[in-house]
Amino acid sequence: MIVVPLGTSSAAPTRERHLSSAALISDGRILLFDCGEGTQMRLKHAGLRTSRIAAVFITHLHGDHYFGLLGLMSSMALMRHKDPLVVVAPEELTRVMHLLPNIRDHELTYPVELVPLPACLSHAVVYDTPEFFVEARALAHRVFTVGYRIQEKARPGRLDVKRAGALGIVDYTDYQALKRGQPVKGPGGRLVQPDAVLAAPKAAPSFAYVADTSPCEGGVLLARGATLLMHEATFAGAMQARARATGHSTAAEAAAVAKKAGAGKLLLTHFSSRYKDVEPLVEEARAVFPATEAAQELERYTVVPTDG
Amino acid sequence: MIVVPLGTSSAAPTRERHLSSAALISDGRILLFDCGEGTQMRLKHAGLRTSRIAAVFITHLHGDHYFGLLGLMSSMALMRHKDPLVVVAPEELTRVMHLLPNIRDHELTYPVELVPLPACLSHAVVYDTPEFFVEARALAHRVFTVGYRIQEKARPGRLDVKRAGALGIVDYTDYQALKRGQPVKGPGGRLVQPDAVLAAPKAAPSFAYVADTSPCEGGVLLARGATLLMHEATFAGAMQARARATGHSTAAEAAAVAKKAGAGKLLLTHFSSRYKDVEPLVEEARAVFPATEAAQELERYTVVPTDG
Repeated sequence: MIVVPLGTSSAAPTRERHLSSAALISDGRILLFDCGEGTQMRLKHAGLRTSRIAAVFITHLHGDHYFGLLGLMSSMALMRHKDPLVVVAPEELTRVMHLLPNIRDHELTYPVELVPLPACLSHAVVYDTPEFFVEARALAHRVFTVGYRIQEKARPGRLDVKRAGALGIVDYTDYQALKRGQPVKGPGGRLVQPDAVLAAPKAAPSFAYVADTSPCEGGVLLARGATLLMHEATFAGAMQARARATGHSTAAEAAAVAKKAGAGKLLLTHFSSRYKDVEPLVEEARAVFPATEAAQELERYTVVPTDG
Repeated sequence: MIVVPLGTSSAAPTRERHLSSAALISDGRILLFDCGEGTQMRLKHAGLRTSRIAAVFITHLHGDHYFGLLGLMSSMALMRHKDPLVVVAPEELTRVMHLLPNIRDHELTYPVELVPLPACLSHAVVYDTPEFFVEARALAHRVFTVGYRIQEKARPGRLDVKRAGALGIVDYTDYQALKRGQPVKGPGGRLVQPDAVLAAPKAAPSFAYVADTSPCEGGVLLARGATLLMHEATFAGAMQARARATGHSTAAEAAAVAKKAGAGKLLLTHFSSRYKDVEPLVEEARAVFPATEAAQELERYTVVPTDG
């Protein structure tokens, strides 16, 4: 998995920073987390093709997190996109977006599979593939907001062919069954368990996207053991009261979530436009959680478990 | 009047060109013509403050001409904008935009005055101030589309105070009445007509914005004698059949409109992303109408009548 921050500004864009969006690349597919205005341009700047976008996950319905979805969908139709596009978003958006001229169903060239999140949702798996799944959890913002976690499914460890052979297992279909976790019959009907021939499962990377929110339990649960946590850090510590009043986090609070959750690495994002230089916020966070960086737009972050 | 093209790309943005929008600055107010995705960023790049935007005129409901309105309106609320914002747009948008989370009436800090254009509209004055008015005319595109013309009202010529004095007119309120075009009573009750003391009215600049459209009568009427005509030129002449099929114009067709209308100067815009270099399109247009340029994004074009 590779994560590419596309926009790291909160609320309003600045000359240097763009509105919220992060792309995750996995197996040639792109998943987008949030889609602020201008995301289609940022994808272009990142060299990412819209034809590879499989799903968009919207955290909440403040414009800086979703207005870019409309232009993206419209442009994908212009490009004669054919594959289904999954849109996971708070229910209210899924009710009204099809009313907007230029992204009404009959104007699109591809099917849109809406996954509406009801405002009462606290936790759900919202996307599932053989390779990974995405869960959503409610956060603590001014309006109904969720964070997301994408978790690769554990892959079986390497099969020790010699060891399998010594146990009389030489058939490819038996190898496959063992890798799926099923015991197979050896010579004389003796069952061979997967553990006997497989190395430990490979560590499965995970990515948590937690924005916008005050520090909360939902964020910690999403970030639990995550290889990479991208957490909003709208304010420096001096503005903690404002962070609380507006449903946001300070950099140190984001770091405390990373620490409590045992995340591998923390990327701060969603900076208030008042901070031309965000290095002081990074310093505040590092005092709590050393493996912290400010998300750099268009940089490619490889999500690799430390034991992988 | 000053015109600043903010985006000159058709349909999809390119790395160099942005989506349709043009700002017109008059008396410290900004009028926006079209508002494609990213317009609020382009205003920032142009050094234009959103607090000065008085009205937005949308030509049609293809996303590249209106999706940026949502983020702009949302950001203006974030900036605690207070003055009314006039939005002139095809009726369908004015019916659904208030349903969108983050730009619903109760989420805005300023009143929005909607001017819905019914799809049967052929011609109307849609905005009127003491200094200028804006008219809309139906064009020939794939969906209901209008073009706009902003026309400054003729300003009275300079009052010849000496001549007025010789006729016995020395009072300031009489000067004002004459400038408004009203005759006033001189000594002995004799009427003094404005013509007797005022120079010829100053030439009044006008700006026509014609996009998207095939060349059509509505475009010519909007451009009639316009100081500056901004006309779409999506295609080069080699793609005339495609221009016709998609309801667009070639550069030479835009030039023919300028020529027929007796416009002062032509700015080409709305270039297909296939043209990295638009100079060949400008050449094609100049063969028909020499006073042609390609609109340069963020450049400031002063709209001054040649006799002004």
